[in-house]
Amino acid sequence: MSAIEGLIAEFARLPGIGRKTAQRLTYHLLDQPAEQVSKLATCLTTVAERVRPCSVCGNPTEAEVCDICSDPRRDPAIVCVVEDPATVAVVERSTDFRGRYHVLGGHLSPLDGIGPEALRIATLVDRVRGGDVHEVILATNPSMEGEATSTYLQQALAALPTKVTRLARGLPVGGDLEYVDSVTLSHALTARQEVQ
Amino acid sequence: MSAIEGLIAEFARLPGIGRKTAQRLTYHLLDQPAEQVSKLATCLTTVAERVRPCSVCGNPTEAEVCDICSDPRRDPAIVCVVEDPATVAVVERSTDFRGRYHVLGGHLSPLDGIGPEALRIATLVDRVRGGDVHEVILATNPSMEGEATSTYLQQALAALPTKVTRLARGLPVGGDLEYVDSVTLSHALTARQEVQ
Repeated sequence: MSAIEGLIAEFARLPGIGRKTAQRLTYHLLDQPAEQVSKLATCLTTVAERVRPCSVCGNPTEAEVCDICSDPRRDPAIVCVVEDPATVAVVERSTDFRGRYHVLGGHLSPLDGIGPEALRIATLVDRVRGGDVHEVILATNPSMEGEATSTYLQQALAALPTKVTRLARGLPVGGDLEYVDSVTLSHALTARQEVQ
Repeated sequence: MSAIEGLIAEFARLPGIGRKTAQRLTYHLLDQPAEQVSKLATCLTTVAERVRPCSVCGNPTEAEVCDICSDPRRDPAIVCVVEDPATVAVVERSTDFRGRYHVLGGHLSPLDGIGPEALRIATLVDRVRGGDVHEVILATNPSMEGEATSTYLQQALAALPTKVTRLARGLPVGGDLEYVDSVTLSHALTARQEVQ
């Protein structure tokens, strides 16, 4: 296999990138100065060699403990449990959450052989049992697997004195009632809030 | 900038990849074994270091002369002129063309400062003048810039005894007459073919 074919094949392994896009990316890079291509290669190598899960929360970091876990201004008493690092990035970008995180590394999916031991659930329970955590916010995805994971976590944490909450279900802002699915609408109705 | 941010930024420089997709790709790679990420990095480095334009036709290759130009079974008398290597790949994949190629490296675009000297036009003229080329097939894109480039090439090759042809204009197979643009339809009508 030629170098070009090899690069196309590697690009095509990435999610959401088919063979055509992989070709387009490869031919684009062939048009760029070699330094530009090397820079992307260097970034990948750096990530492959240096980035590891934080030993406390599991979020990827170059240090032993990530920036958020080692930031004294972040409240260690509130832990937001998410499925993956992408969710940490979203919460950080769009809210002013000042607690810390716990990254599970996915959701329960028995059919794919992903049980509780494949996720960072034991370390979460240890972390909560260990001490100062007053509230665990369950922020798994609002999907079937995410809900199942959330339910499992509730049970795993039930024996501990910590408060457990989950993100509110309701209407997405900017949506149109006509297009809201029935489950969401039913949640929004049940959890209706008093305004006056 | 962290290693993760750096990789997101590099991915986001690629065409058709916005910041969200760049994040998704990066987080996907964080989930993969380090060897997988290193493999992509190695492929990129190989391409950056080894791939150069073929000295005859300009198509990217790891050798001095590309596989097509050095294949004795490919007819050197027929040269298909294309804008970029992606077109070579398409023609190779979808037709049984057995001639050779000449890759211009883009199209004329005076507004972007891309004149004839920025493309491999002089080497094409030299190649045709040099000898055994009986037919030059102009296969630039059917866009305004591609057409302009094609016209320029016709003039550049006019003094030489070589036959110059271009790809047929007409209805795309599988299209619907209702949605064909008027220029294409007008071409198809002018170049109508006798069937009986």
